[in-house]
Amino acid sequence: MKDMTKKCVLIALLVFMATGVILAEDGYRLWLRYDKITDSGKLKQYREYLNGYWLTHNSPTMQAIRDELKMALPGLLGTQVPEVSSLSNGILIIGKPGHPELQSLNLTSQLRDAGSEGFVIASTTLNKKKVIVIAANEDAGLLYGVFHLLRLMQTHEDIKNVSVTSVPKIKYRILNHWDNLDRTVERGYAGFSIWDWHKLPDYIDPRYRDYARANASIGINGAVVTNVNANALVLTPAYLEKVAALANVFRPYGIRIYLTARFNAPMELDKYETADPLDPKVRKWWADKAEEIYRYIPDFGGFVVKANSEGQPGPQNYNRTHADGANMLAEALKPHGGIVMWRAFVYDDKVPDDRHKQAYNEFVPHDGELKDNVLIQVKNGAIDFQPREPFHPLFGAMPKTPLMMEFQITQEYLGFATHLVYLATLFKECLDADTYAKGPGSTVAKVIDGSLDGHTISGMAGVANIGTDRNWCGHPFGQANWYSFGRLAWNHELSAEEIAEEWIRLTFGNDETVITTVLPMMMASREITVNYMTPLGLHHLMGRNHHYGPGPWVDGGRPDWTSVYYHRADSMGIGFDRTTSGSNAVGQYFPTVAEKFNRLETCPEEYLLWFHHVSWDYKLKSGETLWNALVRKYYEGVDSVRWLQRTWNSVEGRIDPDRFNQVKMLLTIQEKEAVLWRNSCVLYFQTFSKRPIPEGLEKPEHSLEYYMKLSFPYAPGIRPRW
Amino acid sequence: MKDMTKKCVLIALLVFMATGVILAEDGYRLWLRYDKITDSGKLKQYREYLNGYWLTHNSPTMQAIRDELKMALPGLLGTQVPEVSSLSNGILIIGKPGHPELQSLNLTSQLRDAGSEGFVIASTTLNKKKVIVIAANEDAGLLYGVFHLLRLMQTHEDIKNVSVTSVPKIKYRILNHWDNLDRTVERGYAGFSIWDWHKLPDYIDPRYRDYARANASIGINGAVVTNVNANALVLTPAYLEKVAALANVFRPYGIRIYLTARFNAPMELDKYETADPLDPKVRKWWADKAEEIYRYIPDFGGFVVKANSEGQPGPQNYNRTHADGANMLAEALKPHGGIVMWRAFVYDDKVPDDRHKQAYNEFVPHDGELKDNVLIQVKNGAIDFQPREPFHPLFGAMPKTPLMMEFQITQEYLGFATHLVYLATLFKECLDADTYAKGPGSTVAKVIDGSLDGHTISGMAGVANIGTDRNWCGHPFGQANWYSFGRLAWNHELSAEEIAEEWIRLTFGNDETVITTVLPMMMASREITVNYMTPLGLHHLMGRNHHYGPGPWVDGGRPDWTSVYYHRADSMGIGFDRTTSGSNAVGQYFPTVAEKFNRLETCPEEYLLWFHHVSWDYKLKSGETLWNALVRKYYEGVDSVRWLQRTWNSVEGRIDPDRFNQVKMLLTIQEKEAVLWRNSCVLYFQTFSKRPIPEGLEKPEHSLEYYMKLSFPYAPGIRPRW
Repeated sequence: MKDMTKKCVLIALLVFMATGVILAEDGYRLWLRYDKITDSGKLKQYREYLNGYWLTHNSPTMQAIRDELKMALPGLLGTQVPEVSSLSNGILIIGKPGHPELQSLNLTSQLRDAGSEGFVIASTTLNKKKVIVIAANEDAGLLYGVFHLLRLMQTHEDIKNVSVTSVPKIKYRILNHWDNLDRTVERGYAGFSIWDWHKLPDYIDPRYRDYARANASIGINGAVVTNVNANALVLTPAYLEKVAALANVFRPYGIRIYLTARFNAPMELDKYETADPLDPKVRKWWADKAEEIYRYIPDFGGFVVKANSEGQPGPQNYNRTHADGANMLAEALKPHGGIVMWRAFVYDDKVPDDRHKQAYNEFVPHDGELKDNVLIQVKNGAIDFQPREPFHPLFGAMPKTPLMMEFQITQEYLGFATHLVYLATLFKECLDADTYAKGPGSTVAKVIDGSLDGHTISGMAGVANIGTDRNWCGHPFGQANWYSFGRLAWNHELSAEEIAEEWIRLTFGNDETVITTVLPMMMASREITVNYMTPLGLHHLMGRNHHYGPGPWVDGGRPDWTSVYYHRADSMGIGFDRTTSGSNAVGQYFPTVAEKFNRLETCPEEYLLWFHHVSWDYKLKSGETLWNALVRKYYEGVDSVRWLQRTWNSVEGRIDPDRFNQVKMLLTIQEKEAVLWRNSCVLYFQTFSKRPIPEGLEKPEHSLEYYMKLSFPYAPGIRPRW
Repeated sequence: MKDMTKKCVLIALLVFMATGVILAEDGYRLWLRYDKITDSGKLKQYREYLNGYWLTHNSPTMQAIRDELKMALPGLLGTQVPEVSSLSNGILIIGKPGHPELQSLNLTSQLRDAGSEGFVIASTTLNKKKVIVIAANEDAGLLYGVFHLLRLMQTHEDIKNVSVTSVPKIKYRILNHWDNLDRTVERGYAGFSIWDWHKLPDYIDPRYRDYARANASIGINGAVVTNVNANALVLTPAYLEKVAALANVFRPYGIRIYLTARFNAPMELDKYETADPLDPKVRKWWADKAEEIYRYIPDFGGFVVKANSEGQPGPQNYNRTHADGANMLAEALKPHGGIVMWRAFVYDDKVPDDRHKQAYNEFVPHDGELKDNVLIQVKNGAIDFQPREPFHPLFGAMPKTPLMMEFQITQEYLGFATHLVYLATLFKECLDADTYAKGPGSTVAKVIDGSLDGHTISGMAGVANIGTDRNWCGHPFGQANWYSFGRLAWNHELSAEEIAEEWIRLTFGNDETVITTVLPMMMASREITVNYMTPLGLHHLMGRNHHYGPGPWVDGGRPDWTSVYYHRADSMGIGFDRTTSGSNAVGQYFPTVAEKFNRLETCPEEYLLWFHHVSWDYKLKSGETLWNALVRKYYEGVDSVRWLQRTWNSVEGRIDPDRFNQVKMLLTIQEKEAVLWRNSCVLYFQTFSKRPIPEGLEKPEHSLEYYMKLSFPYAPGIRPRW
């Protein structure tokens, strides 16, 4: 008997070895790793409740569900789980509420408000059989339900009495890829575009499907596959055929494809003399183009448009308004069910006013003028995805128009793909901000989910951080930002902390020590970055063009592309006066907010220099002078990165060496660059303050001149000029 | 007992499932897959002969060997194989001949001519213990020996009586990466550059090591990591630090790093007024620069230079010769042991002669003038890596100078990364060609390995087809070209067929049906491509700039960059007259060859239109007219691609579905593009021949105008202009 046991163990070992594929944790699997459940109690439970699965009907999405379960269940449970076709004890049933076997559960009422994407997961008894049911009105909901259940298992949740009803709060949950047709990615730091246009439509990279799976697993239902700085060529047949091939891959995963529309496409593609949105020929061109697109892609989502901004053509070239432009495209798409996402990110150096104010000034007058399939896409803040910005004053200011959120997942201003910065705290800070548009509680989240003003369409867009890097996002922790964007777009009431914990469990496993170590790192990380880059409300201090590293000295050329325009440091103090006595950007907020920001005493210190030009000797709440506090923030930022390093080192051995070492190397870079930011900014601002670096702080290693001379000609993410 | 067995099987199954990682065959593992040996007899033998391994000394390369064995042996043998530190039965011993335990074997004499890289593998008896010994004079040889043994096992060779002595025939076996600092790759079709310069030196992508492993496994010992169209910035400290980090990864794998030297770097980097190679200040600049580089990289390999070619600066800008330029750099590198690889790929549209002749004319006069650490790097043919070219007339014509071969592994002119083209047959055709330089048998191979003229240094360079694609080369079969380049650089006497079979076994496994099916596909593939692109000696018919697809009509602009310059089709016939009555390029070959090429009757038909302008009605050996034969070749090419498709389809189920489907999709593209080539060329040449497409051949789907209007603005591989 003993011998037999030995043999048995040996065989097991040999079989283990037989599979001995050399598998590095290269991060490709994202949060869908499906490694075996390590908690034996939970494993037992899951095996008991999932000894088979029954898909009660067939469709491409049901096939996607089948594929996912075939991949996930053997991985998670360490055993084959058969597909069955009738009711039995301990199975998972996936179907619509009207299915004969499910009718007794009265799911129809539970799913009344679930729309096409919501779902119910319930542990229940059917014909005396214990089963878990996933039900939804449409297949997309079933897919989301399946991913939800898989997540519960991956995070070791109890499923014995599972009872979940989940409905997305936002209708359009969309990734924006700033990807060019040459595969460069504007502000992309994870390699190049995953869309291999040259090989499409005939070569379908397996990655396209894995991309769709990842998105579906977190509820993302749309992808804008081209850059907002748009190329009209994507609207030609040769490219539409390629786009259609991608759409075919995405469709079973509930993901619609969108394109960016270059406003003067009729001129560039068909030699029209004008792109005037009120010109009937131009309008017909777009109507025909829409019809053509829908021939290729019957469920095409619509257009995103960046118009009259940073050199992009737009309706203003013809003395028309943004509303004229958006409505023309909306009309073209309307018969086919498409939408227009018209970006509010507009500013012009010819407009002699605070850039902060321009979007509001241009868009608010058109509230109510837009067709019902237009959303205005507004960045979270009024400048440009800075480490910290107050929420955009447009939120709440256009009650008759659905405003959608544009977050930036790619870390253009937050350390590219080499800094560990968990962005859900940034997203939440904005979503939870109170606009006071309809009194207290009028949060930005309620503006964009449509509940505040009763809109039926709503949207949230995230500028993707996805590229050809094997781990998709460059930084292993960059995946958390993609993940949390999706989770928040589905449910903005989740906390940043909940999402982080989920992500850690999915990504690094359920080791409690890892969770309690990594969670505080993530939660602190964004504030750390604010500290070593742009503390106390400073903003737009980065290097010119590539936006890499510090450039507080950037001056000359277009003023609103310089740093000095924003920090306004002088011998007296520092900061941009946006109060009523300054540019009066505060005036664009509702009174409660405006007053708070306007008064030096009540303005939150994290926005201090955003709204006020403050004397170097001004005393902060801590009692410190502004200068000392500013310097100390920069030093705190660097010290905290060192804390990140030490903390990370403590999980060595508890996670796989591959990702452990990757993050370790990246933290080394982050520390170097944090020091670079700190030294550059402190030395530069010191030339104005003429005050010493407080006692006890390490001296900058080099002179200001040294830092100013550093050059990074091939920093990634700039669009090459072909 | 029965129950126990059942349990046992169950446990084995569960353990198997436990490892249930979702592993797609994504091609990342290349030919180093180390999956378990499927032949049970061989498995038994290997386990018997490799029940342990002993590394008899330590070093970074020995550590690399240890890492490889730790990865490979459990995978191949399905069992753990311990490292041991003394002699015992059935172990593998790896060491130098002088090691006390190995002295009795008298390996020193066997290794007398093995140099620093050759090795011996022998099954033998030591102190009455049966062992396998891998011995070499230096660690690099041991590493190559280990990879050789692993290959024997992966290909199911008997190792019971293994006895191998292997010494590379070529000293410098080098990949040339045409990679730019912005990560674009000139003529790269597998994504972008694997060198992530922005994150270097602190972030070491795990891929760098896997790249080094792959190269070492096939004997490649050098990598030029920057484009021959060079950027001087790589010679600055900020970049040298990054290059040094790569060199540190490569070093244990016997791989030296090389850079491309921009000839006017003293001007671009340090504002010198000249880069005249005879100017003492310039010479000092390069000497200092070399010294600086060696401070960063003590084993730096040297420079590759493209000078006075296609706009690159060079010595001729100062009325100096290539020899002057090369010797200046050679002098700078000499004290440190570096070499100069000076490219012979020079031509100038201002020179009113056949481009074919220019390299010969410029270089032959300098034979004997070059320093002893200079190699002249010559492309296999005189034009530019065409699907078929006769060998370059420089081979054999500079007996006092070591000429090294430059092959192109990336398929610039052979269908990018979407056509299945096995290049070893092309490489071999050139290597085996007889120059008659010293009478019959003076093959190109003997010129470049130094044996013909008694050179002590020799080299072979391959322009890499490696990029960020998960499978490295874009096309799964592209890996075979990287593989065969390395194998031929080590031993050019291997046949293309032997190498193909090795590669199939390593890549797709040892299923005989797969081998006998895929091998003929590979062996035929290059000729197939010649047929649908440039049959009968035609050349340079591709699209302008991007070189994608057919462009026989390309005309205008610089003549030697057009197609009409090369095919010279007119109402009489087609082809470039390079005979004694034409440009007399034939005169650059040795008489036996020159005469053969010069006479229409003796000129091999595959070079017919390369050397002759031939009448449309000329009768080929088959009796067909030239026109009919030409058309038929184009049709044969397409038909053969369809044969490739059918043949590939027959291995479905015998290899993994991932790679099966990838290749299937790529063959669909290849078929489409072969038709595009055929129709474009036949219709275009028909406008001159005015003769019909022979009976029974399918009619082109579109008109010539249709094909001429197709445009591919984002075809990959062009260097963007930043």
